[in-house]
Amino acid sequence: MTDLAGKILAGDPRSLARAATLVENRSTAAESLLKELFFHTGSATVLGITGAPGAGKSTLTDQLVHEFRREGKAVGVLAVDPTSPYTGGAVLGDRIRMLGHHADPGVFIRSMATRGHLGGLAAATTDMALLLDAAGKEIVLIETVGVGQDEVEVAKLADVTVVVLVPGMGDDVQAIKAGILEIADIFVINKADQPDADRLERELLALESLSTRPDGWVPPIIRTVATQGQGISETRFAIRSFLARTDAKARAAANWTLRLREMLRERLIEQFATIDFQAAAEEVAARRSDPYTITDGWIKQLRD
Amino acid sequence: MTDLAGKILAGDPRSLARAATLVENRSTAAESLLKELFFHTGSATVLGITGAPGAGKSTLTDQLVHEFRREGKAVGVLAVDPTSPYTGGAVLGDRIRMLGHHADPGVFIRSMATRGHLGGLAAATTDMALLLDAAGKEIVLIETVGVGQDEVEVAKLADVTVVVLVPGMGDDVQAIKAGILEIADIFVINKADQPDADRLERELLALESLSTRPDGWVPPIIRTVATQGQGISETRFAIRSFLARTDAKARAAANWTLRLREMLRERLIEQFATIDFQAAAEEVAARRSDPYTITDGWIKQLRD
Repeated sequence: MTDLAGKILAGDPRSLARAATLVENRSTAAESLLKELFFHTGSATVLGITGAPGAGKSTLTDQLVHEFRREGKAVGVLAVDPTSPYTGGAVLGDRIRMLGHHADPGVFIRSMATRGHLGGLAAATTDMALLLDAAGKEIVLIETVGVGQDEVEVAKLADVTVVVLVPGMGDDVQAIKAGILEIADIFVINKADQPDADRLERELLALESLSTRPDGWVPPIIRTVATQGQGISETRFAIRSFLARTDAKARAAANWTLRLREMLRERLIEQFATIDFQAAAEEVAARRSDPYTITDGWIKQLRD
Repeated sequence: MTDLAGKILAGDPRSLARAATLVENRSTAAESLLKELFFHTGSATVLGITGAPGAGKSTLTDQLVHEFRREGKAVGVLAVDPTSPYTGGAVLGDRIRMLGHHADPGVFIRSMATRGHLGGLAAATTDMALLLDAAGKEIVLIETVGVGQDEVEVAKLADVTVVVLVPGMGDDVQAIKAGILEIADIFVINKADQPDADRLERELLALESLSTRPDGWVPPIIRTVATQGQGISETRFAIRSFLARTDAKARAAANWTLRLREMLRERLIEQFATIDFQAAAEEVAARRSDPYTITDGWIKQLRD
């Protein structure tokens, strides 16, 4: 066992932070570290929190962290932030609010960029969650913006996924509802003191009545006003109910099926990142080479 | 040169039909054949025709085939049919209408299933188009239903793409407009004798005014009544104008960039089709193996 791995297992926060940077940079050192740590993981519960920008996810996350801390649980938070300049400001504000936990050694918070590495967000987030698990975090909260395909993929990797909606979002919510219904184990209507909260709840109930999940679970709809701490213990209760009801072993196996696919996909994308498709296309278009020989060559490259 | 390749280059229709079956089945024999034929390709123009079910694509395709035949051009038609039982009947009816060309040795018609092989529709269609090109077809018409991602990918592989719309389709058309605007080089408003044709044209003009294509081309909007042959020569004129205006070499290189990606993707999917993700996930979930060693093993498998 390496020194770094030992320190992480012992819960040293500085070693954890160092390892998180290795994982974020997708370094080869990270991979051998994660291999070492993997057999010490499997006890954390991964909780995904997703929703459109402005839904109040960070405030809800913040409140849930407080709730878990009151239960004495060690918590890790992975905030998957969009790097878009349009939302960057708001996200930064939320992060500053979360700083309140920085004094608490039982909470580890890490922001992750949604862009930058090659589509490997789901794989990177999985690795980061494993790292936090190895470091003794009992709850790993993954907060994502549920608008892009990437973020939905990340939400799917959680043991339980909370989808946060707010009244009066109109058509945008409609547009993502199909995807959201699939991934939501629990719905939270945040800012429930606003008008139209009833209408949103009716819409969700109507949507839920249209189809049945294979596991028979009907996602509860919780009303919260996260800024005032309302509805947080109800959300916590819903999370507990869902987890108690599902078979942890079957859920882990199902999650790993998705995760392994993502990990394989990321590795392949990485390996092929150096291909100059444009140059190859010019060769083929000019009939100096044929596309079958070229793609065969790329696949053979994987061996090196 | 194999006997089959020689006969295809000589334009023998029975050999072409035999080879098309090989290509459709994604056999290894098809690959070596296509390698042989590839250096005899590059002169066909690939024309994509896409649109929602019921837009009249097959009738328009039929009319365009007649138009190209009047010009003395050899034509190949690839009809990418959805296998959905809901549209199967209508498509079959269209196919029967196309049978009129079967007596004409200058026209080769082939239906392709959208499902069945592993997501490799774009790669299979590319191969089929190359085969028709080698067999001396000067125009290859690819007719797809522009609803799924797969079909949009196929449309992107064409030299020129015609998007067929009909008045009064309402919200469904709205929903796919974003994707359609990207791929359309020419818009056809079919069934233009119906009410709402003016409104559809105004909507398209409004959408076109919102953004400019990188190549500066503004897709013309042609009105047709395909069942009565109206607007067909105007469509043909628009196709000719677009092709005359764009640099064939640059377009071929751009198309091959997409095609090579699709071909690589299909090969990888094929190679990994035998992986039992579920069984591997159970091993990982039980901590009998780690996900890094497992994914590494899969990548090493590619060598064999």
